[in-house]
Amino acid sequence: MWLRTFAYCRLGSSLAFALIATIAVARADPLASWNDTATKQAIIDFVTTITQQGGPEFVPDDERVAVFDMDGTLIPEKPIPAAVIPLAADLKEAVVKKPILADKPAIAAFLKGDEAALYDAGEQGLNDLIATITDSRTTEEFSESILPLMKTTAHDRFHVPYTRAVYKPMTELLSYLDDNGFENWICSGSPVLFTRAVSMEMLGIPPERVMGTSSGTKLDERDGKTVLVFDGTIDHLNDQEGKPPTINLALGARPIFVGGNEGGRGDIAMMRWSKDRTGPSFQLLINHDDAEREFEYSEPDNYSLDAAKKYGFYIVSIKNDWKEIIAP
Amino acid sequence: MWLRTFAYCRLGSSLAFALIATIAVARADPLASWNDTATKQAIIDFVTTITQQGGPEFVPDDERVAVFDMDGTLIPEKPIPAAVIPLAADLKEAVVKKPILADKPAIAAFLKGDEAALYDAGEQGLNDLIATITDSRTTEEFSESILPLMKTTAHDRFHVPYTRAVYKPMTELLSYLDDNGFENWICSGSPVLFTRAVSMEMLGIPPERVMGTSSGTKLDERDGKTVLVFDGTIDHLNDQEGKPPTINLALGARPIFVGGNEGGRGDIAMMRWSKDRTGPSFQLLINHDDAEREFEYSEPDNYSLDAAKKYGFYIVSIKNDWKEIIAP
Repeated sequence: MWLRTFAYCRLGSSLAFALIATIAVARADPLASWNDTATKQAIIDFVTTITQQGGPEFVPDDERVAVFDMDGTLIPEKPIPAAVIPLAADLKEAVVKKPILADKPAIAAFLKGDEAALYDAGEQGLNDLIATITDSRTTEEFSESILPLMKTTAHDRFHVPYTRAVYKPMTELLSYLDDNGFENWICSGSPVLFTRAVSMEMLGIPPERVMGTSSGTKLDERDGKTVLVFDGTIDHLNDQEGKPPTINLALGARPIFVGGNEGGRGDIAMMRWSKDRTGPSFQLLINHDDAEREFEYSEPDNYSLDAAKKYGFYIVSIKNDWKEIIAP
Repeated sequence: MWLRTFAYCRLGSSLAFALIATIAVARADPLASWNDTATKQAIIDFVTTITQQGGPEFVPDDERVAVFDMDGTLIPEKPIPAAVIPLAADLKEAVVKKPILADKPAIAAFLKGDEAALYDAGEQGLNDLIATITDSRTTEEFSESILPLMKTTAHDRFHVPYTRAVYKPMTELLSYLDDNGFENWICSGSPVLFTRAVSMEMLGIPPERVMGTSSGTKLDERDGKTVLVFDGTIDHLNDQEGKPPTINLALGARPIFVGGNEGGRGDIAMMRWSKDRTGPSFQLLINHDDAEREFEYSEPDNYSLDAAKKYGFYIVSIKNDWKEIIAP
């Protein structure tokens, strides 16, 4: 009997140390890279309120879903969005194989890095790009090359590999939400087949929690084995009003927490859709106002920042709210 | 100090009881409603092998994804698929409001319960049905009524509410996989907006792990609030070759475990796609061969059962492999 009691005590003490460790972690500042501003306080207040068992605004775990845009929200989108790195590599390869492709305006613009011309090419242009890049490749062939390339390509502005060019304050926010029972999802305008290849490595978000612009695929056979092959079409363009339907298809519910950024008008629709859910919610719009430490850009008509004020979204000033941008 | 030691012992003993309880659960037969046949043994052997840390076929948690068809696989699909209950209720309501709708062949066939005529109406017929039922309703309006109706409607054959008309051996399999680190998903031909409304209650699977036939939605405003409204189109018909693209869009990977059933040819494509993954996998095809306790039906050309033999899928004979069908 004494031996059994002794065994319990051994178990007990290791458990006690585990508890002490947990308490220590819980006491540390979960948002250490954020300055002590109203924005940081608002995030902490919201999470504290909705996780307070028995509190008036308590939200059960299964409703704690947070959705974030990626480019410009979790990672920098300047000078170019991360997805452009592998897409450009693939596109160059495709043009070498089939030079006539370079006659397509969007492809020419893309290869020249001519953003204006690329924008002018519009959705048809995007279709040409995706069709060229995915042309008759299997989903698995497409994905393989992405992560290795992102690990070995340095970001022009921050001089770290793209896989480490992520906003430190936002990765802290993701961990903080995760520790408080939230499921974190990405809803990006970038192709989902790209974002999935890097989401775990860059942000700790598993592929099945990534939404994005999707290309059509069809079941085919290669050497008697089934494969999914891209059919060259864009199945869904995941931007602006296109985001809420994607989130609804993936989740079947409105997210309670949404993060987006100004600069491309892309995230206001999903933020409004979250704001209009029944019960509490929180929307965070990142303002790129720090030319010195990151980038300074905004929409000519100030659309997103005006919408944030109108609908009551919280605005994150990179300049004032973030102590650190990218971990060195 | 003695007090602290005492505290550790208290913690320790409760922990020890927890451990004993866990061991007890682990020892109980996780598939009690299955007869001790080769099929049951094959399932247990597969799960044991791929969860054996350091073993030659060990599969990490993040790859342990199981995907199941719903109608005929997890729940009965005769005399009518569960989704027909709310769809019929909605359709009758729509026809009362707009009698001319009854002139559409598919709607007439549906209301008469004329399966052959419904089948003849084909995809256009399905479009007419979905368009009529979803016509300008919001996603939330549509979902609300489903679960209450399914809780109060009795299944014709099993005389329990539809929400309890689920295969007991399959719910045991879901729990067994869940206990072994699998994520269970549904990939059904039924409308995803229906399946999601019942998946947690019927099968313990959360809405975000449900895939199905999807209808187009667009963002709209009602009384100044954003809502998603059905646009009357079918976005994706989730059957046969349509299933692997849906799974790939949701998961970005091939599932390691797939369950389906013969009777409608619907699941062979996703089972083959799973079988052709790199590494171990397991496919289960349910054969409805028990006229006495459930239903007996098969495809005229025996397509699914032949495919199971050809590609090495396991066949579950309801008659021989299942001790119990539905919990009374």
